[in-house]
Amino acid sequence: MFDNDGTLWIEQPLYVQLAFALDRIRALAPANPGWRERQPFKSVLDGDPAAALAGGQKAILELVVASHAGVTTEAFAQIVRDWLATARHPRFLRPHTRLVYQPMLELLAFLRANGFKTFIVSGGGVDFLRPWSEEAYGIPPEQVVGSSIKAAFELREGVPVLVKLPELEFIDDGAGKPLGIHRFIGRRPIAAFGNSDGDLEMLRWTTQGTRSRRLGVIVHHDDAEREYAYDRASHVGRLDEALDVASLAGWTVVSMRDDWRRIFPEP
Amino acid sequence: MFDNDGTLWIEQPLYVQLAFALDRIRALAPANPGWRERQPFKSVLDGDPAAALAGGQKAILELVVASHAGVTTEAFAQIVRDWLATARHPRFLRPHTRLVYQPMLELLAFLRANGFKTFIVSGGGVDFLRPWSEEAYGIPPEQVVGSSIKAAFELREGVPVLVKLPELEFIDDGAGKPLGIHRFIGRRPIAAFGNSDGDLEMLRWTTQGTRSRRLGVIVHHDDAEREYAYDRASHVGRLDEALDVASLAGWTVVSMRDDWRRIFPEP
Repeated sequence: MFDNDGTLWIEQPLYVQLAFALDRIRALAPANPGWRERQPFKSVLDGDPAAALAGGQKAILELVVASHAGVTTEAFAQIVRDWLATARHPRFLRPHTRLVYQPMLELLAFLRANGFKTFIVSGGGVDFLRPWSEEAYGIPPEQVVGSSIKAAFELREGVPVLVKLPELEFIDDGAGKPLGIHRFIGRRPIAAFGNSDGDLEMLRWTTQGTRSRRLGVIVHHDDAEREYAYDRASHVGRLDEALDVASLAGWTVVSMRDDWRRIFPEP
Repeated sequence: MFDNDGTLWIEQPLYVQLAFALDRIRALAPANPGWRERQPFKSVLDGDPAAALAGGQKAILELVVASHAGVTTEAFAQIVRDWLATARHPRFLRPHTRLVYQPMLELLAFLRANGFKTFIVSGGGVDFLRPWSEEAYGIPPEQVVGSSIKAAFELREGVPVLVKLPELEFIDDGAGKPLGIHRFIGRRPIAAFGNSDGDLEMLRWTTQGTRSRRLGVIVHHDDAEREYAYDRASHVGRLDEALDVASLAGWTVVSMRDDWRRIFPEP
């Protein structure tokens, strides 16, 4: 089980999905005139996303839910693919799908070559991840667990579609990760890989007990030169309690600076 | 995508999971003295399950939720396995896992041998199905979509467990089936197999559109001698609207009496 943001791909300076949400809010603004007067939308449209995100978890959820709803699931998948094809990371100026971690790609391939089945367990949206997870990681849609908003079954001119609704369904973070794994997958993992406190419960649940051997791994972002350095004080991907628990629990902490020869794939 | 009850295994005279729930209510009764005075529990404990089930969907859900909650997910899986090992079908006097349909086992194997991935999409409980789906059908837990009650992550003496709560989470039936497939699996199926109106939306969603070839199949229970004959008036596995839509939609209707040489595996 692999966390995605900060474990398989870059999560700084913003979660990629949040950058997508902000672009989508701008694109949807003409059809939503009320947003000009209402936070957190107003700050986004005024060109001050930092002010919008200062509203914390509540503001972020509001932006994500509003920007991800109102379309069919098939249309949304296409919107995600189109955005990823053109968006560029502000520092590395590459498509985000080229800012996946090369050592993790090698690890995924190594595990699969040895009979393991690989899964993503992300706090990010499952409908945001699935359109590209197979191409980027070799992980098919049905092996992605993530957060979601609700959807409804509708007949549109006789054609059945699923429409995404502006209502939160499930947050696959913290204790939500073991619950999400149980609900979607139905087995306790053999190995779990994360990089933040949001992965703590998943790591604990994976490595508990002594009846069988399990592996817990934390990717530590300590390479400001080649990527970013952050842990305890970070607003994105905060790693604090899990770092303290790691040595006691026998989890492996990977230093991106010392242990990784290469961070991203060849351009 | 395969419906389970009535499509892969027997569902008469009671859904197997409901027979399990009734046995479990009896087993839990000493710890729940209030049940002796309260419907639908009272009728079950008085030896009149038919009266309990006359309360319809509401009574059935109450029995299922009460009988499935209060234990860890791992303990529940063991309870299901233990029950299946000893319970017998009232007419065929065989374990329920030996009342799976032989032609469907052959179809599952044929599809997998030809590169398809096979899934269960059941109105039944996902935690009830997963402990035995791989042994019975060759379908691993992560390829089972189903209904669920909520669960909570807890540390019990420092050990993380997931505890099943007496609260409904998701009903994977009717329009819930395409929604469940989208949420758990994230792709539209190539083929869908069902036997009741609860499969109608799944069949519609699977076979809509003309861009690619899709298959919809309905198993029709018309063999009272070797199994059961029921469709339009049945309380369990009612097949009415879907039968009317089938020819218009181009779905294949399989007659168990005429098309199946054998119903169950060799004893």
